[in-house]
Amino acid sequence: MKSIVALILAASAATFAAPSMAQFAKPEDAVKYRQSAMTLMSAHLGRLGAMATGKVPFDAKQAADNAAVVEFVSKLPWAGFVEGSEKVGNTKALPEIWSQSAKFKETSDKLVSEAAKLNAAVKVGTLDSLKGAIGGVGGTCKSCHDNFRAN
Amino acid sequence: MKSIVALILAASAATFAAPSMAQFAKPEDAVKYRQSAMTLMSAHLGRLGAMATGKVPFDAKQAADNAAVVEFVSKLPWAGFVEGSEKVGNTKALPEIWSQSAKFKETSDKLVSEAAKLNAAVKVGTLDSLKGAIGGVGGTCKSCHDNFRAN
Repeated sequence: MKSIVALILAASAATFAAPSMAQFAKPEDAVKYRQSAMTLMSAHLGRLGAMATGKVPFDAKQAADNAAVVEFVSKLPWAGFVEGSEKVGNTKALPEIWSQSAKFKETSDKLVSEAAKLNAAVKVGTLDSLKGAIGGVGGTCKSCHDNFRAN
Repeated sequence: MKSIVALILAASAATFAAPSMAQFAKPEDAVKYRQSAMTLMSAHLGRLGAMATGKVPFDAKQAADNAAVVEFVSKLPWAGFVEGSEKVGNTKALPEIWSQSAKFKETSDKLVSEAAKLNAAVKVGTLDSLKGAIGGVGGTCKSCHDNFRAN
């Protein structure tokens, strides 16, 4: 058991030697983490968008599955925007994320609440309920990207 | 609203022109998707591993939060192992994933069930309950990586 846990630690590339660095051993890990969460969110939101615009047929079960992922994953990226990761690797994160941290927090909180609304709406099981809620998520994505992400 | 949904689609880089390709517009998207899910799973499992081995103090709330992510995200990567993505980009996926697909499915199903057991165990709220369940997840990770991932 001990060796397997050691493997988990090695695989995760986390050292935890410095608790003050919180959850990531290196700033690069934080960047990779937040980008991974964004990739998942984008993939699942994209599928809902395709249904909302009629590019693929509406399917209530698939819509519910995708909205559940969007809601869950919407909570994750923010922990990855740690101080010290502003200019690490291939990031489009703008310095305003840290210099206007209250505004950034407000926008990310709004994304989480809009994603929860979307998930609740999609549970109704109709295309109209999806259409009525997806704009709130998409608009929040856009607003945050406009203000806090380089093009 | 329509323009925002169009933005969602553009951002997700998904075209959905070919329904037979299922959920990913390009094999590269599938690789990026599955690697992103693995990154999240590894990050959160690593934090649990650090508690299990005493590298960081046990915290019942943090353990519960991390185990919930591990369980949820454990269901995601598998959709990304689509035919045609075997040799795309920077992947360590071995051909056995597709040539021994039943075995791969069995292992990935086992990961999902072990992650669910871990999440249930962690809800007990003790270090011992974490220690008792994390090996099942770690062992499944290792077994799958040994058989289906290049070193």
